[in-house]
Amino acid sequence: MTATQPLQIGIVQRTRQSPFYAGTIRAGVKGFSVYNHMLMPIYYESPEADYWHLMKNVTLWDVGCERQVEITGPDAFHLTRLMTPRNLSRCRIGQCKYVPIVDENGGMINDPLLLRLGENHFWFSLADSDVLLWAKGLAVGYGLDVKVTEPDVSPLAVQGPNADPVMRDVFGDWVTKIRFFRFKETELDGMPLLIAKSGWSKQGGYEIYLRDGRYGNQLWDRMMSAGAKYDIKPATPSTIERIESGLLSYGNDMTLEHNPFEIGLEKFCDVDQAFDFVGKAALQKVKAEGITRKLVGLVIHGERIPGCSRHWDIEKDGEPSGKVMSSVYSPRLEQNIALAMLPIMNTNIGTEVIVVTEWGERLGATVSPVPFE
Amino acid sequence: MTATQPLQIGIVQRTRQSPFYAGTIRAGVKGFSVYNHMLMPIYYESPEADYWHLMKNVTLWDVGCERQVEITGPDAFHLTRLMTPRNLSRCRIGQCKYVPIVDENGGMINDPLLLRLGENHFWFSLADSDVLLWAKGLAVGYGLDVKVTEPDVSPLAVQGPNADPVMRDVFGDWVTKIRFFRFKETELDGMPLLIAKSGWSKQGGYEIYLRDGRYGNQLWDRMMSAGAKYDIKPATPSTIERIESGLLSYGNDMTLEHNPFEIGLEKFCDVDQAFDFVGKAALQKVKAEGITRKLVGLVIHGERIPGCSRHWDIEKDGEPSGKVMSSVYSPRLEQNIALAMLPIMNTNIGTEVIVVTEWGERLGATVSPVPFE
Repeated sequence: MTATQPLQIGIVQRTRQSPFYAGTIRAGVKGFSVYNHMLMPIYYESPEADYWHLMKNVTLWDVGCERQVEITGPDAFHLTRLMTPRNLSRCRIGQCKYVPIVDENGGMINDPLLLRLGENHFWFSLADSDVLLWAKGLAVGYGLDVKVTEPDVSPLAVQGPNADPVMRDVFGDWVTKIRFFRFKETELDGMPLLIAKSGWSKQGGYEIYLRDGRYGNQLWDRMMSAGAKYDIKPATPSTIERIESGLLSYGNDMTLEHNPFEIGLEKFCDVDQAFDFVGKAALQKVKAEGITRKLVGLVIHGERIPGCSRHWDIEKDGEPSGKVMSSVYSPRLEQNIALAMLPIMNTNIGTEVIVVTEWGERLGATVSPVPFE
Repeated sequence: MTATQPLQIGIVQRTRQSPFYAGTIRAGVKGFSVYNHMLMPIYYESPEADYWHLMKNVTLWDVGCERQVEITGPDAFHLTRLMTPRNLSRCRIGQCKYVPIVDENGGMINDPLLLRLGENHFWFSLADSDVLLWAKGLAVGYGLDVKVTEPDVSPLAVQGPNADPVMRDVFGDWVTKIRFFRFKETELDGMPLLIAKSGWSKQGGYEIYLRDGRYGNQLWDRMMSAGAKYDIKPATPSTIERIESGLLSYGNDMTLEHNPFEIGLEKFCDVDQAFDFVGKAALQKVKAEGITRKLVGLVIHGERIPGCSRHWDIEKDGEPSGKVMSSVYSPRLEQNIALAMLPIMNTNIGTEVIVVTEWGERLGATVSPVPFE
């Protein structure tokens, strides 16, 4: 059952407005999702037009919904290490690290970017789940001397091949010299900022963390003005680009039911390190026994179809065989592409399966390399 | 800045569909919010028409988004007690209790209904936050022998003055004899159910907890058919009715920044009990020192205005003085009514304040008793 017309979103206090909300409305945003209890813009001109602009020019994204969990205090590094199987013993101040967060069973709780601001000062820049409550629960239970909060910090992303000139014009030459997954703390016209070379696309760019929400309008307008000569446009995280590039989306491609090895994040799991992070025994077992299913790329054959709004069934030789986790039509590749969780024996490149869409259509599909090309 | 046209909601796997989703689409739902990472219908005919039907007849609500956290295992009662300041020493099997959940500082994490299904078997039927992660974090940190999960359980609410005859026709006489805030486990045509005399309105009714999502369509259709002779209509939790009745909404009327004493839940806080729940010392201090602000009713004068989409400022004698947390126009009382967090010295009934709306209008308002009459 699918609605025959666009459905409206209810806008209430509970689904909070980011500091850039007014900017996105002025820029003509067409709709929202909700992410970390905050409204997240989903498209402006059209998902496809926004995608092409990201691929060819430069775009400005309100990703204020990437909320931060800030951990400070004498036990801050200890708590941070408890929360991830990634080995953080060499994590430096000024560095970003992509870190799986897992529960005691090794199940995925979130896949944030970790930023180390000081010896005992960390931000987790989150995907969509209340890691604040997980971190606080661990801290209380273990009796750790930490402060765990959601600070007034809201990222604004500048993404696309022309991100560098825009950033240079606003901040100066130094900014383009920030290395990938490094950040600098700075200020602009009194606005307290942190700028990272990062972002949820493979098109290059920056995330500007605004550290005082009162400046949301000022920062949005400043970036839009500075970007005008490079034809900047408002856009959003792109489902098309991120599936093409193989970037994962928490809640879509994985949930608490999946461990990092099943979704290709084993390289961020050091289960042999000395430090006893939460879930270590569970992930050691996974590593020793091997996984039974794996997230892979899938090309779904036939005409252009809408992306899935819920996980679709997959069949192989007439038997149920996994789920489509995310799918979209790629206008660049002129193919329907997807990420799918398949039984390990069906994950070889070239394996043929049948996808059953939410409207009951049965379509052939082929396991494919990611990124899609 | 407000959008000039309705904004669309993005429907993706991450914002999950309840088992009753297809039913709500068939019934003509017009929009959704997101609640506990699940789509929650917001209205059908209009918020006002749906409200009148709730007040005068009977309505069926998809509240599958009230997700359950299930706690079982030898330490289940211990963990459950850790999570709330309410004294659970006399909580019986078959009973529902409205329980604040607070953090180590006494801040509100959620305000669910607790259901005791067995000596060591509990459900928290949740407002909008990931209590699953809080409970799991505490369990891991304290090393408790429990299992904490989100089971396949989805509530469907039958609310309104004609709820009794509908329920009697479907389940038999026994169902109307369930006392308020009690529940029974039962079955209907093979569908595993739990029926509670409860619901997020003061119009009377039931919540039917479906314990196997595969039956979502069957249960929805069965209730709609049985209700036809009582003129049942699809509806949703009503902002109008719940503010009139003084029912609280987590994320709107309160957040982690507020303690239970500030929002009128002191009667559910036994800070002198022997059991050491999380946040006990913090709430003992609050009780000893008294609160500095309090949630009260407010009548906002003048013509009908839209409800707030973010918290509005309040002024008293030219100074900032609290926030409007929720507001709505009541067509029954023909007044704009609100719940507001005010400094304690301004909370006496009859106190006059100024409300500054999100579009900059300044309106007189009067502190009023709740429920509104």
